[in-house]
Amino acid sequence: MNVGSGPLPKEHRAQVTFWPEGERVRVPLETTLLEAAKIAGVDLASSCGGDGLCGKCRVIVRQGNVTAQPTSLLSREEIRRDYVLACQTQVAGDVEVEIPPESRDEATQILIDIDAQRYRALCPVVGSLEVHPAPLTRKLYLELARPTLDDSLSDQSRLFREIRRRRPAPIMQLGLKVLRSLPKLLREADWKVTVTLGWRGGTVEVLQVEPGDRTSRNLGVAVDVGTTTVVAHLIDLDTTERIDAEAVCNSQRAWGDEVTRRIIHAGTQGGLDELQKAVIGNINGLIGAMVQRNKVTVSDITAVVFAGNTTMTHLLLGLDPSSIRKTPYVPVTTTTSPIRAVEVGIQVNPRGLLYTVPSIGGWVGGDVTAGIYAVGLRRSEKVQMLIDIGTNAEIAIGNRDWTIACSASAGPAFEGSGVKHGMKAIHGAIERVEINQQGAVQYRTVRNGIPRGICGSGLIDLIAELYKAEAIDRSGNLVPGASPRIRERDGMLEFVLVPGTRLDTGQDIVVTQADLTSLLNAKAAIYAGAEVLARVVGLDFQDIEQLYIAGGFGNYLDRDKAIAIGLIPDLPRDKIRFVGNTSIVGADLGLLSESTWQELHSTAESVTYYDLINYPNYYDEFLAARFIPHTDLSRFKSVQHSREVEAWT
Amino acid sequence: MNVGSGPLPKEHRAQVTFWPEGERVRVPLETTLLEAAKIAGVDLASSCGGDGLCGKCRVIVRQGNVTAQPTSLLSREEIRRDYVLACQTQVAGDVEVEIPPESRDEATQILIDIDAQRYRALCPVVGSLEVHPAPLTRKLYLELARPTLDDSLSDQSRLFREIRRRRPAPIMQLGLKVLRSLPKLLREADWKVTVTLGWRGGTVEVLQVEPGDRTSRNLGVAVDVGTTTVVAHLIDLDTTERIDAEAVCNSQRAWGDEVTRRIIHAGTQGGLDELQKAVIGNINGLIGAMVQRNKVTVSDITAVVFAGNTTMTHLLLGLDPSSIRKTPYVPVTTTTSPIRAVEVGIQVNPRGLLYTVPSIGGWVGGDVTAGIYAVGLRRSEKVQMLIDIGTNAEIAIGNRDWTIACSASAGPAFEGSGVKHGMKAIHGAIERVEINQQGAVQYRTVRNGIPRGICGSGLIDLIAELYKAEAIDRSGNLVPGASPRIRERDGMLEFVLVPGTRLDTGQDIVVTQADLTSLLNAKAAIYAGAEVLARVVGLDFQDIEQLYIAGGFGNYLDRDKAIAIGLIPDLPRDKIRFVGNTSIVGADLGLLSESTWQELHSTAESVTYYDLINYPNYYDEFLAARFIPHTDLSRFKSVQHSREVEAWT
Repeated sequence: MNVGSGPLPKEHRAQVTFWPEGERVRVPLETTLLEAAKIAGVDLASSCGGDGLCGKCRVIVRQGNVTAQPTSLLSREEIRRDYVLACQTQVAGDVEVEIPPESRDEATQILIDIDAQRYRALCPVVGSLEVHPAPLTRKLYLELARPTLDDSLSDQSRLFREIRRRRPAPIMQLGLKVLRSLPKLLREADWKVTVTLGWRGGTVEVLQVEPGDRTSRNLGVAVDVGTTTVVAHLIDLDTTERIDAEAVCNSQRAWGDEVTRRIIHAGTQGGLDELQKAVIGNINGLIGAMVQRNKVTVSDITAVVFAGNTTMTHLLLGLDPSSIRKTPYVPVTTTTSPIRAVEVGIQVNPRGLLYTVPSIGGWVGGDVTAGIYAVGLRRSEKVQMLIDIGTNAEIAIGNRDWTIACSASAGPAFEGSGVKHGMKAIHGAIERVEINQQGAVQYRTVRNGIPRGICGSGLIDLIAELYKAEAIDRSGNLVPGASPRIRERDGMLEFVLVPGTRLDTGQDIVVTQADLTSLLNAKAAIYAGAEVLARVVGLDFQDIEQLYIAGGFGNYLDRDKAIAIGLIPDLPRDKIRFVGNTSIVGADLGLLSESTWQELHSTAESVTYYDLINYPNYYDEFLAARFIPHTDLSRFKSVQHSREVEAWT
Repeated sequence: MNVGSGPLPKEHRAQVTFWPEGERVRVPLETTLLEAAKIAGVDLASSCGGDGLCGKCRVIVRQGNVTAQPTSLLSREEIRRDYVLACQTQVAGDVEVEIPPESRDEATQILIDIDAQRYRALCPVVGSLEVHPAPLTRKLYLELARPTLDDSLSDQSRLFREIRRRRPAPIMQLGLKVLRSLPKLLREADWKVTVTLGWRGGTVEVLQVEPGDRTSRNLGVAVDVGTTTVVAHLIDLDTTERIDAEAVCNSQRAWGDEVTRRIIHAGTQGGLDELQKAVIGNINGLIGAMVQRNKVTVSDITAVVFAGNTTMTHLLLGLDPSSIRKTPYVPVTTTTSPIRAVEVGIQVNPRGLLYTVPSIGGWVGGDVTAGIYAVGLRRSEKVQMLIDIGTNAEIAIGNRDWTIACSASAGPAFEGSGVKHGMKAIHGAIERVEINQQGAVQYRTVRNGIPRGICGSGLIDLIAELYKAEAIDRSGNLVPGASPRIRERDGMLEFVLVPGTRLDTGQDIVVTQADLTSLLNAKAAIYAGAEVLARVVGLDFQDIEQLYIAGGFGNYLDRDKAIAIGLIPDLPRDKIRFVGNTSIVGADLGLLSESTWQELHSTAESVTYYDLINYPNYYDEFLAARFIPHTDLSRFKSVQHSREVEAWT
């Protein structure tokens, strides 16, 4: 391979071959590999629209000449192994390209499929909401009466009158820019126009006026910005159908996996701006990819709903989150009015509105507000609990009369982050693990892909199985000699989950002692947080009618195993429901309904924010939960505590 | 005099002498004459702050060297007579300067004084309103509670909570820009801040947050933009005191004295922009002059209320008024939400709001809405009528249950425009005229200045007196030989009001036959409009309990003479009140009270707009009113119709 950067003769063509398909295509020189892949009809992941931002379109140049732009999204190791970003690499002659499994577009599709399954799983809950479709932005086609001497209302009042005939709107607004275009537009369109209305709480804004009937296409985007992952849905606001979905890693990770690292960076010179640009870049990349794929235009998108934790919301809006990190952990804002999306750089219709789901407190954000709404906690007569396990875990308990919520700093271990071979629940992630009585390890991967790492649900299984097999003790320490898969590397014990000999990469997939310690700390923080929160309101876990577990573990969660390791309380299994990404579901629903949007606000206002630091013995509770399943075994009566020593293969 | 433009040696000084005072001052070379006048303590008019925009600081360079910038505000004739703009002319050596009477600052002061008198005259009316001072923008000094773990509200909510303790505000808004500044500002100010709140109908916006107590200064500006004159008031929103007032000719007159000419110009390439810039320039000039004089800053001004006719409002906002001119005379808008004043270029606080008084229809604007409110017509049980005589005359009739309004295209004759020696009611304007039995002409000028021309009230007197003296017939035609003052010039009869021999200028002040014809047409249009409007609602003038005459005639209006010429209906004199500029009074009141602002809106909405074109016999009525006082003398029973022929001196 020869990566050069000299000028190339024009008007020449070259052949590009994509492996493993062997698909061949002839393209002009200077075509990017991403474009060539599209022409060849080869699946290749990309979520930034070819801007070199998402880093998804990694391919390996096996043979031939290309011109590659420099990028920070490839490691030195990857570059040595001839990886390039397909969108940043131009054909400079005949070339043979290999598409590695992780760059298959299907990887994203699977993540989306999982979301879709969860969405459907949530439907029984959501279905009971009786949400009337009344999206935050709507298009109406109007045929206005021509003015006469008897009906000489102003252009604006004529428009408002017709809008009011179609929909009750006590206070209407119309910006100067639209007003200025009105007289010419109305007359040239022969008084037949389409208005786009944007909901702004008590008032309705006429966002734009277009000639003729343009109602056929009105789109919205719901975005869930997690500390680790950014997910976006493209939604048809007319049919309420979800047209597409897309996900990408949060580029802010360059400044640290944890929220606090990013808050610190935001406080440095230019840091806030960098972090804002990163997340806006992610959102624009996702929107760009979906717009391209569905042959729509960004100007069709008139509303964006954003759900994220409080810090993510601050970074989106360019608000300094510094005070969230320091006692008493005060955010700049929890609720903001809709603004033009372009005001923060989101590339949709220039008049389109950005709505942010309101936060509850400094460490319980709009993602939790959306989740509480989505699972229906505040419509329940009986007490329910929601545990949202992301980079932090947020916990809410309550019913329609009262709700209290807190955040437990669990760290991102269950999101696959900070774990050596951890990964998101995408193609090739080990999502289930079993160790049989003979000590053989059995696993299942997402879409049965070649294993590439292990995601949250796999990690929970693994701990439970290692403990059952006595390969780890109650503190989560690996027991040397308990299995031939336990070995020492660089002074640390590790468990070999998949030997590299079975893999193309030749690399073992392992879980290290450090990983296990992180995971035990994470599960202890979550359990102790839930325990303390229930106790603060004078309740016991047994008082909980329904426990919702939200988060990005994978396609399923084995409730028995989650209880076995002491991650979640020992409740009857039918009271426990795994509900996936409730943040994006809540954002979707908010986008589709004004009344939901109002309820999201009343939810944020009425949920009491509780800081675990206020609880005198929280740290003791955390330490007690640091064991498998817990120091106090009486809390996990259903768990089989008798253990048998077994042989390992 | 030598007007050059070469470079000048620095560090030199020169002597400037101002005549007629003979005041002398030594200033550095390159000092402007305006600055020199200030240093010398000599009164010199200027309302644009020395930017060469208002054209008020005309002086005559009698001797010496100056460097003058080119200007379009001086005629070729004036330039030949050594006129310069003092602010655009630099001292280039010893110089002697004459300040002509019209450039005395007192000229403006008088206009303002007149306004003040009218304001006071209106007070009995206004006083009955019980307006609670609740200005559209307000400053509040707040001492916020410091956040604690028990009180960890967000910065924004903490601010809102404290504001709500001080004033009920259901929905509050705060822009992203202010929000971004909040965390640093609150902490650096030790949680002691001043907020400026702007009223936006149903919601309240936090316009700005400043550290410490800044409540001492919160100013508003009320502007009345007439077709001919622009008047501005600077108002202390805290004490409700009117600090200052300033007036200037509407620079849009360069494109025509009449509204329709300007509408036509607005339809040409770049025309709308030119007209908008002209009026914004006027407003900024007035604000600049008042700000400078009162040693305040533009950032102290947080609210601007604008009252003007519908076309003036369109031109202010940059809206194409073309359709107002064509049947069915439809404006683009009658009501707009508050916007940032800077959005149209008004130079006040960058967060300050611009409120426009809503219009009633295409030819009955916000100035009439303000007038109807100011005189209390819609609070009256009995029927009242308002006739506002400006460049057009607008007429409203009604009470608290119903009101109807129309516009009569009278032309600007009674504003002194389009009349050969007509002028505004400023220093030296002839405001009263009497012709005694011997035919001697007696007159009184504003502030007893040397007569320079004749204003509206003087013209009304003159017609009445000429008619009484049989120098004109019932059609307003001058009777040749009826007086030695009647003569022919350039093929037209004219009446010499003041012979030039008595004046410094040496020029006669005359009223021509063409002037008289214009004035008779104007009075006929106004009377016929009032007559028709009353008849449309099935009433007679005798049903009117109170007739308010608003407009810029001068310091007083002789009711008997206004009736004698048939300008206004023949009502008992105690039912007729001259109320001056009710537009600016209404704007003032709106600025000072949210509830007034709301009432201005309900007034604009509930007044029925009537187009005289709808009345079948309007033109006949106009023709019948074309005589002195009217074709039908029975309508003017109180007027002495027996006439005696008298000798003229």
